[in-house]
Amino acid sequence: MRIEERINTLGLVLPDAPARAGVYAPVKVFCEKLAYMSGVGPNTAGHTFAGCLGREYTMEEGRQAAERCMLNLLAIIKRDLGSLEKVARFVKMTVFVASDNAFNQQPQVANAATEMLVNIFGEDAGCPSRSAVGVNVLPGNIPVEIELLFELN
Amino acid sequence: MRIEERINTLGLVLPDAPARAGVYAPVKVFCEKLAYMSGVGPNTAGHTFAGCLGREYTMEEGRQAAERCMLNLLAIIKRDLGSLEKVARFVKMTVFVASDNAFNQQPQVANAATEMLVNIFGEDAGCPSRSAVGVNVLPGNIPVEIELLFELN
Amino acid sequence: MRIEERINTLGLVLPDAPARAGVYAPVKVFCEKLAYMSGVGPNTAGHTFAGCLGREYTMEEGRQAAERCMLNLLAIIKRDLGSLEKVARFVKMTVFVASDNAFNQQPQVANAATEMLVNIFGEDAGCPSRSAVGVNVLPGNIPVEIELLFELN
Repeated sequence: MRIEERINTLGLVLPDAPARAGVYAPVKVFCEKLAYMSGVGPNTAGHTFAGCLGREYTMEEGRQAAERCMLNLLAIIKRDLGSLEKVARFVKMTVFVASDNAFNQQPQVANAATEMLVNIFGEDAGCPSRSAVGVNVLPGNIPVEIELLFELN
Repeated sequence: MRIEERINTLGLVLPDAPARAGVYAPVKVFCEKLAYMSGVGPNTAGHTFAGCLGREYTMEEGRQAAERCMLNLLAIIKRDLGSLEKVARFVKMTVFVASDNAFNQQPQVANAATEMLVNIFGEDAGCPSRSAVGVNVLPGNIPVEIELLFELN
Repeated sequence: MRIEERINTLGLVLPDAPARAGVYAPVKVFCEKLAYMSGVGPNTAGHTFAGCLGREYTMEEGRQAAERCMLNLLAIIKRDLGSLEKVARFVKMTVFVASDNAFNQQPQVANAATEMLVNIFGEDAGCPSRSAVGVNVLPGNIPVEIELLFELN
């Protein structure tokens, strides 16, 4: 089954890819078969997040934000590389979670993003190495920002 | 001398590799000869850290935590790749240090990790590029989290 | 035009490359044609920064700090690789911005660094993927720290 079919089968919908919001490349292909993606937040045309985990947002809401980041990243891959079939495997994900000093469940928030990838791409291609860390504040006050490194077919 | 002999000669002991604690690959091999490792903390079966530098922990204690992270990373390499001889050279290390706003000696904490690598693997293979940054909180309230990129033989 | 001429034409001056301040490789070449650079701050012989955005520094001052980081990075490339002509293209930049909880314009600070790269190296070579995040504190109380991944010619 093609990747977009799997996305639909899972009841997920790719949003419009977020517009570039600064001087950077959303996806940078290098060494012919690797691609680094700029950090992406959860906001879409329909919904804007503002706040941090342990204060404005619960862990469950943080997980929803991580899923939104992931869908935005997939939408950017499709827009910039033409197709999600270009992804051979995800290599590394960094998940920055805006966190109150007392909130320390960043991995549980990050799991929402990697669980989605594994559901869509399978265990080998969809399960990258990962770091999940807390930070006190993120751009535009978003609760989660995710960056990705992946291998191309 | 083999790597594990050097580790023993230095009086260091590899702990049991920490179990995976989420949906991620502890080590992800890509492009045949590179490997990215997920961020790892200092906890072992025998000791759990909880707190940040400049509050619960002194710099010296932070350095011990960084050493524990490094030993956990080496134990994971051995478990997942079969042998520490697989490492050709460490390329990049990111050291996240949970820090009180007034603590700004993150590089001194991070040095404990790179000093250990240089002692074990030698200057060329053991001395990666590195970023050391403060963050307000880390998963499970650990004081240090380290991620690694390395080249394989 | 050679890169150093472009730098001069833009009215910029490469500082003395900052001395290594810990156990790490300022530039680590790997896989023959990639190089990772350790995180670098804005301090030079002539000026030391101390503080964070939204408290001690305005966004405009933060942008100046980001430019200083970038010039330090370029000076290190020249010192360690011999020439800025060795850079084929910048692949990934991570910009850590020491930020008060209420400051969330990290991308605008980071733009100062990528704008400089694009002005010097052009759009394809000079515009990397990028993550910009806030953190509560950075080494030595610097306001900005930047790390880089680039491809070599």
